[in-house]
Amino acid sequence: MKKVVLAYSGGLDTSYCLKYLKNEKGFEVHTVLINTGGFDDQELNDIEERAYELGSAKHANLTIVDKYYDQAIKFLIYGNVLKNNTYPLSVSAERVFQAIEAIKYAKSIGATAIAHGSTGAGNDQIRFDLIFHTIAPEIEIITPIRDLKLSRQEEVDYLAQNGVHYSWEKAQYSINKGLWGTSVGGKETLTSHKSLPNEAYPSQLVKEGEEKVTLEFKEGELIAVNGKKDKPSNNIVTLEKLGNAYAIGRDTHVGDTIIGIKGRVGFEAAAPLIIIKGHHLLEKHTLGKWQQYWKEQLGNWYGMLFHEGQFLDPVMRNIEAFLEDTQKNVNGKVFVTLRPYHFVLDGIESDNDLMTNSFGQYGEMNNAWTSDDAKGFIKILGNAQNIFSAVNNETYE
Amino acid sequence: MKKVVLAYSGGLDTSYCLKYLKNEKGFEVHTVLINTGGFDDQELNDIEERAYELGSAKHANLTIVDKYYDQAIKFLIYGNVLKNNTYPLSVSAERVFQAIEAIKYAKSIGATAIAHGSTGAGNDQIRFDLIFHTIAPEIEIITPIRDLKLSRQEEVDYLAQNGVHYSWEKAQYSINKGLWGTSVGGKETLTSHKSLPNEAYPSQLVKEGEEKVTLEFKEGELIAVNGKKDKPSNNIVTLEKLGNAYAIGRDTHVGDTIIGIKGRVGFEAAAPLIIIKGHHLLEKHTLGKWQQYWKEQLGNWYGMLFHEGQFLDPVMRNIEAFLEDTQKNVNGKVFVTLRPYHFVLDGIESDNDLMTNSFGQYGEMNNAWTSDDAKGFIKILGNAQNIFSAVNNETYE
Amino acid sequence: MKKVVLAYSGGLDTSYCLKYLKNEKGFEVHTVLINTGGFDDQELNDIEERAYELGSAKHANLTIVDKYYDQAIKFLIYGNVLKNNTYPLSVSAERVFQAIEAIKYAKSIGATAIAHGSTGAGNDQIRFDLIFHTIAPEIEIITPIRDLKLSRQEEVDYLAQNGVHYSWEKAQYSINKGLWGTSVGGKETLTSHKSLPNEAYPSQLVKEGEEKVTLEFKEGELIAVNGKKDKPSNNIVTLEKLGNAYAIGRDTHVGDTIIGIKGRVGFEAAAPLIIIKGHHLLEKHTLGKWQQYWKEQLGNWYGMLFHEGQFLDPVMRNIEAFLEDTQKNVNGKVFVTLRPYHFVLDGIESDNDLMTNSFGQYGEMNNAWTSDDAKGFIKILGNAQNIFSAVNNETYE
Amino acid sequence: MKKVVLAYSGGLDTSYCLKYLKNEKGFEVHTVLINTGGFDDQELNDIEERAYELGSAKHANLTIVDKYYDQAIKFLIYGNVLKNNTYPLSVSAERVFQAIEAIKYAKSIGATAIAHGSTGAGNDQIRFDLIFHTIAPEIEIITPIRDLKLSRQEEVDYLAQNGVHYSWEKAQYSINKGLWGTSVGGKETLTSHKSLPNEAYPSQLVKEGEEKVTLEFKEGELIAVNGKKDKPSNNIVTLEKLGNAYAIGRDTHVGDTIIGIKGRVGFEAAAPLIIIKGHHLLEKHTLGKWQQYWKEQLGNWYGMLFHEGQFLDPVMRNIEAFLEDTQKNVNGKVFVTLRPYHFVLDGIESDNDLMTNSFGQYGEMNNAWTSDDAKGFIKILGNAQNIFSAVNNETYE
Repeated sequence: MKKVVLAYSGGLDTSYCLKYLKNEKGFEVHTVLINTGGFDDQELNDIEERAYELGSAKHANLTIVDKYYDQAIKFLIYGNVLKNNTYPLSVSAERVFQAIEAIKYAKSIGATAIAHGSTGAGNDQIRFDLIFHTIAPEIEIITPIRDLKLSRQEEVDYLAQNGVHYSWEKAQYSINKGLWGTSVGGKETLTSHKSLPNEAYPSQLVKEGEEKVTLEFKEGELIAVNGKKDKPSNNIVTLEKLGNAYAIGRDTHVGDTIIGIKGRVGFEAAAPLIIIKGHHLLEKHTLGKWQQYWKEQLGNWYGMLFHEGQFLDPVMRNIEAFLEDTQKNVNGKVFVTLRPYHFVLDGIESDNDLMTNSFGQYGEMNNAWTSDDAKGFIKILGNAQNIFSAVNNETYE
Repeated sequence: MKKVVLAYSGGLDTSYCLKYLKNEKGFEVHTVLINTGGFDDQELNDIEERAYELGSAKHANLTIVDKYYDQAIKFLIYGNVLKNNTYPLSVSAERVFQAIEAIKYAKSIGATAIAHGSTGAGNDQIRFDLIFHTIAPEIEIITPIRDLKLSRQEEVDYLAQNGVHYSWEKAQYSINKGLWGTSVGGKETLTSHKSLPNEAYPSQLVKEGEEKVTLEFKEGELIAVNGKKDKPSNNIVTLEKLGNAYAIGRDTHVGDTIIGIKGRVGFEAAAPLIIIKGHHLLEKHTLGKWQQYWKEQLGNWYGMLFHEGQFLDPVMRNIEAFLEDTQKNVNGKVFVTLRPYHFVLDGIESDNDLMTNSFGQYGEMNNAWTSDDAKGFIKILGNAQNIFSAVNNETYE
Repeated sequence: MKKVVLAYSGGLDTSYCLKYLKNEKGFEVHTVLINTGGFDDQELNDIEERAYELGSAKHANLTIVDKYYDQAIKFLIYGNVLKNNTYPLSVSAERVFQAIEAIKYAKSIGATAIAHGSTGAGNDQIRFDLIFHTIAPEIEIITPIRDLKLSRQEEVDYLAQNGVHYSWEKAQYSINKGLWGTSVGGKETLTSHKSLPNEAYPSQLVKEGEEKVTLEFKEGELIAVNGKKDKPSNNIVTLEKLGNAYAIGRDTHVGDTIIGIKGRVGFEAAAPLIIIKGHHLLEKHTLGKWQQYWKEQLGNWYGMLFHEGQFLDPVMRNIEAFLEDTQKNVNGKVFVTLRPYHFVLDGIESDNDLMTNSFGQYGEMNNAWTSDDAKGFIKILGNAQNIFSAVNNETYE
Repeated sequence: MKKVVLAYSGGLDTSYCLKYLKNEKGFEVHTVLINTGGFDDQELNDIEERAYELGSAKHANLTIVDKYYDQAIKFLIYGNVLKNNTYPLSVSAERVFQAIEAIKYAKSIGATAIAHGSTGAGNDQIRFDLIFHTIAPEIEIITPIRDLKLSRQEEVDYLAQNGVHYSWEKAQYSINKGLWGTSVGGKETLTSHKSLPNEAYPSQLVKEGEEKVTLEFKEGELIAVNGKKDKPSNNIVTLEKLGNAYAIGRDTHVGDTIIGIKGRVGFEAAAPLIIIKGHHLLEKHTLGKWQQYWKEQLGNWYGMLFHEGQFLDPVMRNIEAFLEDTQKNVNGKVFVTLRPYHFVLDGIESDNDLMTNSFGQYGEMNNAWTSDDAKGFIKILGNAQNIFSAVNNETYE
């Protein structure tokens, strides 16, 4: 019997796919869930149980949090990646890594096909298909939801006809939780003018006043929160909890999808936003002007291609080499104050801080150069502009 | 008698300059204050009075708010310019325009010299000198503070010896207020790790809860606040007041100065931040992907050169032409919620909104293209990556 | 009867389309040839005659050379556009303009369909379809060659069965001639390692020794060749003839196609290369450093999107505004020497030349600044680097 | 006695410096010549002899060709660096490396001062001083030529008074020869409109007809010429000789100097131009579209900062990491034809060639995708443009 691997989440769409692939297409269906940090043990167990109930030949829960951090999140932090200056790629980055692991799993068990539950109107289909095609062009891609364009009710009915009678009530807000943030979609995000209400977000404000947090970075990686050293992926989780209590990190992302339409989605990402903004501040103190300039160019580009599923484009590896090379002096502490709904960066402390008094302080006279040096500097700095002005008789009216 | 024009603020440094230029250098000193929106009538009168008391041959208060808006702020909004993703150029932009007007004034009255009170350790000297050199290379630049490196006490003593006995107590925080925000310097900003205390900021939180504000843009310009149409420079003032009541817009800018050292300054800029973020959101809905991409590149570059005093570089005019050309569809309303210390963008409404349902909604299947279209798109989109992978036997381990 | 407009060239593919659309699909076929400068009157007459012989209901020859220059070539010159530093977009630019005019023509005569003869493996289909979709989404696109994947012989046979007995011998090299250069494809360009032989090129070396040519530019446009003023599109033709006699402008373009595969094509483009290189040299003398920097960025991007058929992307208009704004000082003469197979730029003469002796000559001491100015300049220019070195204890081993 | 290290070339200026530093300033003068490939043994011996004759306490000839290749030329090739699309940094790159080695030498022998013979009107002073300041801020920089602004005759007279009676006739053209090309200055290069005459160039045309050359690259480095393997620095020399016989590689560089004026210089650089153009062609076949795009951005920036003496800016190391990472697939042969005054790239052969027939040939129908795939691709690729057009009622008049 031909094997298909199905990327399975336990939801209605992929449950439909499971039944459909087995009953209508005659596949031996191997379900797999790739956990990039959004699922706890109980949830993983529940999904596994359901997979078997629906007829999975074999279900695998693959937790890849550390790999995901090492090969993706780390570079998103190095690059201070916020899509459109806003969105930390909460869903897009994890979808790419789920695709990579799913297709590798399919190859490893000798599957001839792979299936996912994406529609034809979103970015996820592209992330999945692009990566599947590249890593295993010989494996067929099957996408029942995209192809059949069924309504929710048609799926429920089909499952019922096949003896599956779960309650599939549609949540008011669709939530996708991962290590690098949680996306939230709802009726408001289908408009241009409404923001999500408080209750749409998974985390709610439970603290008042303010709280100080210290982040510690080593070569660009978050190695401790409040002095407690741990591996970066754990530190992200720790910080997320601290931020969630203040309902920090909510925003709405409006962007150009890969398919050319505009899309809008809410998200909650306390840790990603605090880390990226804190890391960026540390870089302002420890990197040179042109390092920052090119990091911004390349980081943004990296984020764009990543978001658009082109993670396997060879330029991505080159950019990672660049970003990694910039981080060796990004060491030190960042001091943050958490407050309801927002946070403030108080400052940093670093042995690599380039804002050192030994070379003179901004605005204060000093001994590193003289008044005449400054005048000479300005005179020659202005040469090009002055020549341009004189040659072209500029009048500046 | 030789005429010198002195850019005069009424403070200790420029008061010293006035006396020094008149008494020691024998100049006929013409004082000028270029008001870009930071001074009210009372302040202007006080400064004028003091100027005459100290011996100004003629004092002029030149208010250039509209010119400043038309030739500078407008483009900073078009370009969503935030230096290092943070700072709206509150001081730098106005200093450049003060320099331009001061040197033109000097030319107009036949002065042979121009003086300013900047030190040799900051950005302002560069903004002034670069512009003076370019617009009037024939006029000598005199900078007593930079050249003499006097202490505060030496200046006070000199003035006292010359019969000037004002109380020159040093404020705990140095404040520079303008149309596009207020900078705040103090002992904390001389460190890397401390943020300014609440009391350092001119505006204080006086409201609780939240308040809705509607901004209306036409071709990128803010033409109304809460439905009340007025000219953009007035709308900025109106919005600033609304934001100040919530103590919105505080932050600390850390940056690379023109002279190569790192500098740090606090600022408060409610209106600039709300306008830029709101304008940016409107652009996310109304501009194409590559328009946004190139606007970001050119806007950031424009901000960098502007900040560094190179406003007269000819590329700046070319960038302005680009930015202006991008704005014709940036029309519509932006809905904002003000809250203590921060604000939220709720959404937009625009006839030019590209997030329209007629072409299909993100994530929802639609009639604009089929499942097969999507598959064809992905297949060909992946060609380059797939060929690369196959030719180079990539294994993706 | 339903009307279709067919972009007709007189060749085998589009002749097949004409017969097929009329006989098999029952269309009233309106043929149109959009001449961007590659056809002379005799050729236009021959094509028209053939169109009617094959059953065209109405044939139109639309010559759009001036529009093509004003809306495309002009900006390619302003931007010094050479794809991959090599190729002046000889085919791509004209294909885009043929698409625009063809679809407008279709709208103007009330056609319900438009047809072209491109295959499914090249860039032209994309240029045509993208533009057709955007300008007239209501008009159906028909592409018999792409859909039917017929062999050459099958087309010949079909035409013969329908009474068309021209001799359709395949030329050894396929030639596409236009105002902005001629592309040449042949068996060599299907390999990676062979270049086209001399005889593949339409122009042959007929002169020896060398010949001086003077180009004159005004605001970036070529207004005269050898002192003879004429409109730019005519000057291009004049210069092309001069260059052709020396077999100048041959090269091979290797590039990434829109569909992700690599493509290779020979071309001959004497005038485009001489004009672009000459224009670029004039800009080196008349524009500032950052004007040149950003022109290169935006010019290359403009060329890339144009080549890829995305001429109607709104960012293209914004870039044109930028490029146009940079040209006001690009005035003067460029002196060129033509030699067999190559040319040399001798120099320029311009009232806007920024290389003027009044500000000091490169390498020669001067009076515009002193030795101390230079030292001050260097000291402060080095501040950032020096601080970085000291703080991080760099050893430079 | 205080030690000074003098960068000594044997010419009039540095000979003057030697005498002056010893006699007027009382230094123990240690002369050093840093050979980056421009000097042969005889020349080195002559310079050493002269140094001792003029009173050098110790002369050192330091040949650093391989280090120069490994730390500079290699990256200039990886980045296809041609300043302003023309100039391979023949002088600038070697001057930077001479500065680095000279200051290290000064440190190693315990010198308290370092001297060079640059004027105050060129780029070299900046390259020297910037690097000296950064690597050894404690060592004083002495620049007699810049400070004293002596005429040529004054130098000759001073030397004569001090018993030095060489014939210092001024060559008609000043030549600077190095591994990466030779610069040529003369009366023509002080104008904007004249090019250097044939006789100004060191190499003269001695061959007719044409000659085939094969370059072989491994990971971006030139490992063989015409099948003969050798280390890259030797291959450059071999290729330079082949090219010189055809007088290949002559051109004039016009650029913005670091001090803001425009400068113009002739050069002859057969090997650099052939290698860079050949390497670039190989990359067109072996790298992805965005790899090429970003390599161009970063390569140009690298060249600009390098040219401007900012080689020690930390971003340079980051860019090198990027460039190096891009080269692993840049393997294969490049076929070149040399002809009088110019060369032609015939093609390439590479196992990493992405222009492979297995994925379909440009313009030829294939089996990798269908007509419907292409249509789907185009439809979705056009979505954004189509939406923009529809929403904004674009008419394309």
